[in-house]
Amino acid sequence: MKKGLGILGRLQRTPKWKQVEFKELEYKAHTVKDILTEMKDISELIIDLAYSAILFKDDEIAEEVRYLETRMDYLNYEIRMMAMMAARTRDDAEQLSGILQIAEAAETISNAAGDIANIVSLGKDKIGFLPKVLKRADEKIFRINISPKSQACDKSIGELAVESETGMHIIAIRRGNYWIYDPGAPTVLKKNDTLIVRGAEEGFKDLKLF
Amino acid sequence: MKKGLGILGRLQRTPKWKQVEFKELEYKAHTVKDILTEMKDISELIIDLAYSAILFKDDEIAEEVRYLETRMDYLNYEIRMMAMMAARTRDDAEQLSGILQIAEAAETISNAAGDIANIVSLGKDKIGFLPKVLKRADEKIFRINISPKSQACDKSIGELAVESETGMHIIAIRRGNYWIYDPGAPTVLKKNDTLIVRGAEEGFKDLKLF
Repeated sequence: MKKGLGILGRLQRTPKWKQVEFKELEYKAHTVKDILTEMKDISELIIDLAYSAILFKDDEIAEEVRYLETRMDYLNYEIRMMAMMAARTRDDAEQLSGILQIAEAAETISNAAGDIANIVSLGKDKIGFLPKVLKRADEKIFRINISPKSQACDKSIGELAVESETGMHIIAIRRGNYWIYDPGAPTVLKKNDTLIVRGAEEGFKDLKLF
Repeated sequence: MKKGLGILGRLQRTPKWKQVEFKELEYKAHTVKDILTEMKDISELIIDLAYSAILFKDDEIAEEVRYLETRMDYLNYEIRMMAMMAARTRDDAEQLSGILQIAEAAETISNAAGDIANIVSLGKDKIGFLPKVLKRADEKIFRINISPKSQACDKSIGELAVESETGMHIIAIRRGNYWIYDPGAPTVLKKNDTLIVRGAEEGFKDLKLF
């Protein structure tokens, strides 16, 4: 099929974060517990990413924020649907109402993070002063893809000793439309994974050689 | 003066977090930079505290969330005032508008965190299931006061080797109406400081012996 023609062409030109809305349909989380846990994880991660995006005027990280925001919208819709379908008694409804209150707050947080990251799109001349205002640490958040040829494929973070070798801490992994938040030593990296890492510029150079 | 009588009595019965609104007048941050940096710090810390409050049904940590929310309200008001008074040209206004957008988002985040923490006040029977839903780590957030008799008074965190001795990480210190976010080894502890620490129950017991 030829790319760039007709409706399909238009779809393919949709920004990546927008495509998530379509592809998302493939994946259904199965329990209210899973969804709420993921919403909590996103709300913690997304703020980190949003500030990092403006501090370093980093379009890539701003894009990750939009991905997560879209995912959060989807999760909030799902959890609301599940709660309504699950509630049979007044007691059920009261418990589920507490869960929806947290879900709503988590989505509000992710939207606010989106507002912060969107400032990047104001253009570098208009936000040039912000890093000076907010920057304190030498640490930065980076994004890196695991190429299919990388020796890191199918190895665990522990095996690779990423943190002790490079000083970079992996704060999240995006795998297609899934995220793994705060991965640990046993987490295995796959080809085409996108790693969100935090650390110094130097360490990132080392990481790229992996 | 006798306590508990007339208007003064009522004021003294005001919840502590409410009093901040009055006492706050004593303290003025001096620059837009200082205020924005503090708003960023609060927005990162307050989410941690809010989830911890509901995970552990912890009224004390929920109270810290309300403190921070009140402080954030105040800071957002201040930064808006300063921005309006500082803008002289269209260029000024554009730069300051970016700052106010971040400030607004930071306040939205803190209000959402407040909504999460408020669920604690629904009563333990109504949120009893939430820890089961969200809990994963063994780490918890604790609050501890430095008594004037403690040997920790006037010693730095580095000197005390808090983290290596107890495994507890100090994530913030409240000193009267000021907060110190993410303190480091050189930060000196003072009597009556309230420490917000993260770690395992065991480590907290060790810390209390300090």
